[in-house]
Amino acid sequence: MGMIGGGKDAFIGAIHRIAANMDGLVELVCGSLSINKEIAIDSGRSLFLPEDRIYTTYEEMLEKESQLPADKRMDFVTIVTPNFAHFGPAIMALDKGFNVVVEKPVTLSLEEAKKLNEKLEETGLTLCLTHTYTGYPMVKQAKDLIKKGTLGKIRKVYVEYRQGWLARLTEREGNQGAAWRMDPKKSGKSAVMGDIGTHAFNLAEYITGLEVTKLCADLTTVVDGRGLDDDGSVLLKFNNGASGVLFATQVAAGEENNLSIKVYGENGGIEWHQHEPNTLLLKWIDKPAEVLRAGSAYLSDIAKQNTRTPGGHPEGYLEAFGNIYRNFALTISAKINGSSIDNSVIEFPSIKEGIRGMAFIESTVKSSQSDEKWVDYTI
Amino acid sequence: MGMIGGGKDAFIGAIHRIAANMDGLVELVCGSLSINKEIAIDSGRSLFLPEDRIYTTYEEMLEKESQLPADKRMDFVTIVTPNFAHFGPAIMALDKGFNVVVEKPVTLSLEEAKKLNEKLEETGLTLCLTHTYTGYPMVKQAKDLIKKGTLGKIRKVYVEYRQGWLARLTEREGNQGAAWRMDPKKSGKSAVMGDIGTHAFNLAEYITGLEVTKLCADLTTVVDGRGLDDDGSVLLKFNNGASGVLFATQVAAGEENNLSIKVYGENGGIEWHQHEPNTLLLKWIDKPAEVLRAGSAYLSDIAKQNTRTPGGHPEGYLEAFGNIYRNFALTISAKINGSSIDNSVIEFPSIKEGIRGMAFIESTVKSSQSDEKWVDYTI
Amino acid sequence: MGMIGGGKDAFIGAIHRIAANMDGLVELVCGSLSINKEIAIDSGRSLFLPEDRIYTTYEEMLEKESQLPADKRMDFVTIVTPNFAHFGPAIMALDKGFNVVVEKPVTLSLEEAKKLNEKLEETGLTLCLTHTYTGYPMVKQAKDLIKKGTLGKIRKVYVEYRQGWLARLTEREGNQGAAWRMDPKKSGKSAVMGDIGTHAFNLAEYITGLEVTKLCADLTTVVDGRGLDDDGSVLLKFNNGASGVLFATQVAAGEENNLSIKVYGENGGIEWHQHEPNTLLLKWIDKPAEVLRAGSAYLSDIAKQNTRTPGGHPEGYLEAFGNIYRNFALTISAKINGSSIDNSVIEFPSIKEGIRGMAFIESTVKSSQSDEKWVDYTI
Amino acid sequence: MGMIGGGKDAFIGAIHRIAANMDGLVELVCGSLSINKEIAIDSGRSLFLPEDRIYTTYEEMLEKESQLPADKRMDFVTIVTPNFAHFGPAIMALDKGFNVVVEKPVTLSLEEAKKLNEKLEETGLTLCLTHTYTGYPMVKQAKDLIKKGTLGKIRKVYVEYRQGWLARLTEREGNQGAAWRMDPKKSGKSAVMGDIGTHAFNLAEYITGLEVTKLCADLTTVVDGRGLDDDGSVLLKFNNGASGVLFATQVAAGEENNLSIKVYGENGGIEWHQHEPNTLLLKWIDKPAEVLRAGSAYLSDIAKQNTRTPGGHPEGYLEAFGNIYRNFALTISAKINGSSIDNSVIEFPSIKEGIRGMAFIESTVKSSQSDEKWVDYTI
Repeated sequence: MGMIGGGKDAFIGAIHRIAANMDGLVELVCGSLSINKEIAIDSGRSLFLPEDRIYTTYEEMLEKESQLPADKRMDFVTIVTPNFAHFGPAIMALDKGFNVVVEKPVTLSLEEAKKLNEKLEETGLTLCLTHTYTGYPMVKQAKDLIKKGTLGKIRKVYVEYRQGWLARLTEREGNQGAAWRMDPKKSGKSAVMGDIGTHAFNLAEYITGLEVTKLCADLTTVVDGRGLDDDGSVLLKFNNGASGVLFATQVAAGEENNLSIKVYGENGGIEWHQHEPNTLLLKWIDKPAEVLRAGSAYLSDIAKQNTRTPGGHPEGYLEAFGNIYRNFALTISAKINGSSIDNSVIEFPSIKEGIRGMAFIESTVKSSQSDEKWVDYTI
Repeated sequence: MGMIGGGKDAFIGAIHRIAANMDGLVELVCGSLSINKEIAIDSGRSLFLPEDRIYTTYEEMLEKESQLPADKRMDFVTIVTPNFAHFGPAIMALDKGFNVVVEKPVTLSLEEAKKLNEKLEETGLTLCLTHTYTGYPMVKQAKDLIKKGTLGKIRKVYVEYRQGWLARLTEREGNQGAAWRMDPKKSGKSAVMGDIGTHAFNLAEYITGLEVTKLCADLTTVVDGRGLDDDGSVLLKFNNGASGVLFATQVAAGEENNLSIKVYGENGGIEWHQHEPNTLLLKWIDKPAEVLRAGSAYLSDIAKQNTRTPGGHPEGYLEAFGNIYRNFALTISAKINGSSIDNSVIEFPSIKEGIRGMAFIESTVKSSQSDEKWVDYTI
Repeated sequence: MGMIGGGKDAFIGAIHRIAANMDGLVELVCGSLSINKEIAIDSGRSLFLPEDRIYTTYEEMLEKESQLPADKRMDFVTIVTPNFAHFGPAIMALDKGFNVVVEKPVTLSLEEAKKLNEKLEETGLTLCLTHTYTGYPMVKQAKDLIKKGTLGKIRKVYVEYRQGWLARLTEREGNQGAAWRMDPKKSGKSAVMGDIGTHAFNLAEYITGLEVTKLCADLTTVVDGRGLDDDGSVLLKFNNGASGVLFATQVAAGEENNLSIKVYGENGGIEWHQHEPNTLLLKWIDKPAEVLRAGSAYLSDIAKQNTRTPGGHPEGYLEAFGNIYRNFALTISAKINGSSIDNSVIEFPSIKEGIRGMAFIESTVKSSQSDEKWVDYTI
Repeated sequence: MGMIGGGKDAFIGAIHRIAANMDGLVELVCGSLSINKEIAIDSGRSLFLPEDRIYTTYEEMLEKESQLPADKRMDFVTIVTPNFAHFGPAIMALDKGFNVVVEKPVTLSLEEAKKLNEKLEETGLTLCLTHTYTGYPMVKQAKDLIKKGTLGKIRKVYVEYRQGWLARLTEREGNQGAAWRMDPKKSGKSAVMGDIGTHAFNLAEYITGLEVTKLCADLTTVVDGRGLDDDGSVLLKFNNGASGVLFATQVAAGEENNLSIKVYGENGGIEWHQHEPNTLLLKWIDKPAEVLRAGSAYLSDIAKQNTRTPGGHPEGYLEAFGNIYRNFALTISAKINGSSIDNSVIEFPSIKEGIRGMAFIESTVKSSQSDEKWVDYTI
């Protein structure tokens, strides 16, 4: 693995490295870890990278790595830069023959996402989009239950994502992550939907297997002096006739990273909270609710495959992230070796989810600016 | 107290009687407990009413009771009939000089609610509307905290009410409560908003002290073969610039009576769940969340006044209901005696809340039928 | 109902009155509410008792009430005085022909409890002991599940009762309830076991249907300057070979009234917490835990009989207390009328539980003073 | 790192490898992963170890690795064999100059533990004992709060550990982990105290900073046909006068790995549950309880140092385990480099905790066999 972005003090770069390390399947071998030369070099050294594989631009890294012998060069590149700097490195990486892991949202615009898709089709390479939350075993269990028809036809989907870290003008307090997120050139058309709304959207579509067809959005900038929205609520219609609500806010003062989902079908419902990710509530119309727990023998294969410990040994965010890396690594490794894996249980988000996410962002922005009630979700 | 409606097997009549009895301040002395003569008489007897005060029509009851000497006749009448049968008895009761307790929604239409208000102004009598959930001590504590500015300016309001008892065509399975609720002539323009949406709306306005000014609603009938809606989601705008989401559904299979609210201001937020009503979470932007508990010495006067037991002796729905009756009884008793009470802590919902609720129902219906995004909340 | 003790500012007297009122089956008609004449009279007036039935000694009350015609005099007497003042009034009440409700612990000593039992057998009258916590519907559900063999043979019983109100020398701060509880003459041999340990013990024996046969106790006085113990832990052996732990403490600073129980059998376990009394967790050895909820259709008859509201309308401590009064009232009413009731679902603690509780107190004290490990539970 | 034991299908070996990998500070370079030659070789290959560093006995591994040049050989050895096979490899590793990580309990007997201590003193090398649960950041926060006097003098300590995986005769169902644990020759004098009781004991002493001085234990074998105990309850006395209860059971059918602790002092208490490890409840005698959350800015340095993610990104068991490895790796790395680290925040359990744990096991066994109530905790 080579990494683009993610130098010292960048939250998400460190997370990616832990997630990638976890299972001993992936090793960081090179990086262009910052656009600031000094930071790039310092960061590379502190990660014990060999001097000659600490690069100061991604172009240099992709160029030089591609010239290394096949068994020496990195197997894939991970892009953890701000949104606006996903597309360029991703295209170049694919052109140079590298598989790609990229942070969400996949690109700055829907248009870029579609071009990236074309490049993927052209090269036959693989892209992994790190929608971490669908990496949790109990999210996969929920998906599996619904797919098997346990709840009957799905009728209602409620997904919410509440954070509080932007309840103040954090971007003026030296928080660089806040600063680029609130800059339309770096973040895209919507900050809140790009940063967390897409996660909620991805979670809802992943678990239910449904697709949003229409929406009605209200995006607002709650904190004065901010360049982009920090809050949004959306009414949803799905392709099977179900309806729902999605809300995402970064001004819910006192909240951490409170993503949760509730889905109801004819027979019952499920409820999952990211803050307690090892529990899935399964509610029934006429019998007691059940508490499904990660690591249990009664779970489905996909949940078991994506867990490392038995019940009662809580796994968390890093393990969910690690599942994405592990599944990606197993997939490209099988591709390289010409072997086969069971991709019903070893799976990860890719460009399809990336495109749908970008379309969600752009559709909510369009809806929010419109006086019409319902706007088609347009891809 | 005399009761109109609420005979055998009527859920809410029994609840009112327990709530009224609880503090020994109110006694049921007469009733016209059903429009079915036999049931009216049987019900009266099983409640130990004297034979001559078991009536078979409300007109008879109001007429005869009004002719009794002042110290013998009932002090007030409680109306627990289906929605369409609130207005008539209420008007007649007021005309006969009786104070009135009435179930929510206050009437069948906004127009009726306004007329009822005129009658109240004309007679100088008192009406109590049983929005039970604002009777909980920790709801009152939340209101008090926000009123005192603890959270700073309010920015976001999320209120949700999930029930599952109408996830099937319960009205065809002999459930009379379901049957009249799904009959537009008896229930009003919206079933879900009349039955539970108004509670959620009342809770949001009560706790925040704000008023809804615009809304965007999506009401749906999820279960086929049903005469009215059973589900609705609403985007909200408030008079201080805050925004929010309200959703109410009766098809969330597996849910009981899951009403909850989350409010965020500049400094933090509060969270309350009706299923665990003795706890109020108070979240702070930069320090640990606090768990406020009913019955604690550190609570505000209004919370203390509306509790009967010390911390750790859980109170519930019936006590919240009892608070409404107690506060109403203390208020009319003070009025009769010419004494004064502290109505900053002894309070209950009345016609103002009734009118606002009816306007909410009618505005959501209007919005749901409209292609425009935002509809003014019109009173 | 006539009441002995429970005047103004006495916590438990007010609780008894609400519990008794709740269902409209019981009416307070007379009282000797305090040993202080003035308080007795004031309290009676504030409860709207007729002047001639406000008594200033229990002897007077029992004497005069017994001389009233059968249809005028009280049906039973409720004794809510400190522990040392249970026995005298109870014996006299029985002698005068009145049924008795008495607070726990039933008497000051095991010896008194046995004498009271003799008097009950002699008179054929009924005694109700207000072990409130076994009045909760989900406690009754737990008992029923275990009785039916759902968990298989019971192996482990853990019951704990944590309070914090005596973490300071509350008895020196004017708290009269604390003062008499810490006075051996008024409270008995153990304060903590008399006040809350007996509740925990009663809960454990009630739910499991087992009996304690041996115990090993460590009672301590944590707060200096106190006349009796405020804390105790006990290892238990049961008559079926199961073992367990009971601990009760009143110095757990920050705790309210945290009574909980966990029982495990061959197939699974149950867990119940008084702070959230409407939920019973049912755990299984090889499938997901179930969340049983009060008011649900799937519960056993005994749970349903002891609930007033459907699921999601939380009931609490007062309703549990009310169940005891209602079941007692229905029982003595049936006895008077010669009718029959189903006492598998309409039941309440009586002298048997009282005697077992007193034997528990005395056995723990004996054990705590002994150097031997195991002491027989002696009745 | 070299590993002794932990081959294919051994739960704890895989856990150690993930924990060690996580932060990129440790790499597995060799192993003698099983006493079964074939499994040892297969396991080594599946972990991508070089063929010449896959050993089939620990003696061979320690011998050969010690002959490699300093910059090639492993830095330390991890011993994850059953209890009886800790001492031999540990002594030999120290003799050969390797630092040691060892699973708990540190040895088979207290005597062995003391000898191991002597060897450590003799060699000046470092031993790390993987008491995982004290690796959690909120456990460290609890310790820090108590150390700083936040709760005042500690009075009560309740620690419990409930598992259900031995509620059946699992050792006869092919579960090898159960089999050796129930074999006194491999497991030691007490199965339940060796396997989980020592964790609970370590947690209690770690958080409170107190030491157990006396105990009264009841160890039992609940499931028939079993060679060792599967359940135990212990009354405790601490060196500051506090008392407490510890119970550990592996027959609590339906429980996973339910370790929790509650500690009370003069001013308040703390409560922590391993199943939700990112939350620490801090209770106060006269103000609302606080919910402290991992990753928050308001936490103490030691909690922050031992977390990888911001609040709301739940960390779990593997991260707690990873903290132990990271702190150990940083410590021996500093020792090697002659640099200094802040061992007030970078710490891990060692031989002192190992000896105390072994003394706890032996003291509980002695107490359980004794008729005397209190047995001295003897080291």
